[in-house]
Amino acid sequence: MTQEALYEQIRLKKSFLCIGLDIDLEKLPPQFKKSKDPLFEFAQSIIDATHSYAVAYKPNLAFFETYGLEGWKAFAKITQYLKQKHPQHFIIADAKRGDIGNTASRYAKAFFENYNVDAVTIAPYMGKDAVEPFLSYKDKFGILLALTSNPGASDFQFTELAGQKLYEKVLEKSKNWEGAQQLMYVVGATKAAALSDIRKIIPEAFLLVPGVGAQGGSLKEVAEEGLNKQCGLLVNSSRGILYASQGKDFAEAAAKEAQILQEEMAYYLEQKKLL
Amino acid sequence: MTQEALYEQIRLKKSFLCIGLDIDLEKLPPQFKKSKDPLFEFAQSIIDATHSYAVAYKPNLAFFETYGLEGWKAFAKITQYLKQKHPQHFIIADAKRGDIGNTASRYAKAFFENYNVDAVTIAPYMGKDAVEPFLSYKDKFGILLALTSNPGASDFQFTELAGQKLYEKVLEKSKNWEGAQQLMYVVGATKAAALSDIRKIIPEAFLLVPGVGAQGGSLKEVAEEGLNKQCGLLVNSSRGILYASQGKDFAEAAAKEAQILQEEMAYYLEQKKLL
Repeated sequence: MTQEALYEQIRLKKSFLCIGLDIDLEKLPPQFKKSKDPLFEFAQSIIDATHSYAVAYKPNLAFFETYGLEGWKAFAKITQYLKQKHPQHFIIADAKRGDIGNTASRYAKAFFENYNVDAVTIAPYMGKDAVEPFLSYKDKFGILLALTSNPGASDFQFTELAGQKLYEKVLEKSKNWEGAQQLMYVVGATKAAALSDIRKIIPEAFLLVPGVGAQGGSLKEVAEEGLNKQCGLLVNSSRGILYASQGKDFAEAAAKEAQILQEEMAYYLEQKKLL
Repeated sequence: MTQEALYEQIRLKKSFLCIGLDIDLEKLPPQFKKSKDPLFEFAQSIIDATHSYAVAYKPNLAFFETYGLEGWKAFAKITQYLKQKHPQHFIIADAKRGDIGNTASRYAKAFFENYNVDAVTIAPYMGKDAVEPFLSYKDKFGILLALTSNPGASDFQFTELAGQKLYEKVLEKSKNWEGAQQLMYVVGATKAAALSDIRKIIPEAFLLVPGVGAQGGSLKEVAEEGLNKQCGLLVNSSRGILYASQGKDFAEAAAKEAQILQEEMAYYLEQKKLL
């Protein structure tokens, strides 16, 4: 999927919502207790209920890996289902992979060729040769961790040299890597205060912003500081949508939560004259 | 497996060799062309040929993930085979995972519970809550990336503040995390010059040292600077052993390469009076 096609979807749906598929079997509504393939069936219900409000889905690989082969099968089925039924949605494998060049190529192949996702999240610690293999696929994207939404973000990401923090250095350096036009960045919603500085370094890039909802980030602040002239944002909500209700009405409740976020997003897009 | 049991194996075998299972189907000897399960069968042959020289095996997850479900099945079979036939070997899942706390717990569960490996490599960028979930399992270890062997290591790991480099900060901070006695560290053999400084920060910890062989690191330098009073090293070789020959004699050739490394290791262990 091209960035232009993604932007087109954003305008069409008046939404920059990404729904995170962090599916926890223990949190599923009771009707999935007897399901043969609860991971896929729950994901399918959520996708069917929310697709008109979302432009992207983000399966979180840990939540599939933890269920072994069944988990990987479900992940493959979900990506296939999206590509067949909702091919206009951007699929992000939230895998946070990162390894030396010849190994990184294997991860890129796994996700882009076997599972045909549009983007993979990547960890920056090992530097350029761990990232570039993800940037050599046409219309596929690497989404590099810059400033994450979790408490541990403060351990290293703010390490500062001559006024430049580590996450800023990650942004600066990676801009010049081979294939950098295929790079997007993770910036946590809980760190919205940093967004205006981040936009000075990477005005054009798409940002994937987790941390709205359960983690406490504010959509308003993120939109104010993060929107650029082509939107440039994908704001993710996972738990707040998936488990909006754990009863029989889980799909309607998820749709309602997604719609609330979409409507708020439409307002910010209109305010910035992006529609 | 406890650190004491690992050290006991090191003394018994006079070896601190870890063999990396980075299995590339394109590099396998011709007899595996018709094999039904070439990943597992090749790994089994390598393990059978080399187990008396090695104390650890390190399957590299990217090389399994890239083959989809077949790859994951082979990974599971290899870990089972090791646990059943060679239960005295330390198994490292080289996965370099790292995500926010509730997600990291899922990865830890996947590797420690489903696959029963002894250790998992972890990326430090997201900080404490991304690492601690790997340190709460009895006799299981998290191996944190500190200073890696690849060219990209220079992009961020040497970022310096007030004389302290980022990888040193990773070592210093992580020492105080919950469960830190279950932490080991990755330090690339190509960065052996840094080992004496690293030993000042973490004198006791086990180091997993990749980069000897194909990547150009020197075992001699690593041993001189890295050995501590309980050995404290696992030095990894992957390609140099697996593909020592790509002919029918691949297993003998692998054994020979492993033996050469083991004998050199025995010499250093004796020199340091560790046997």
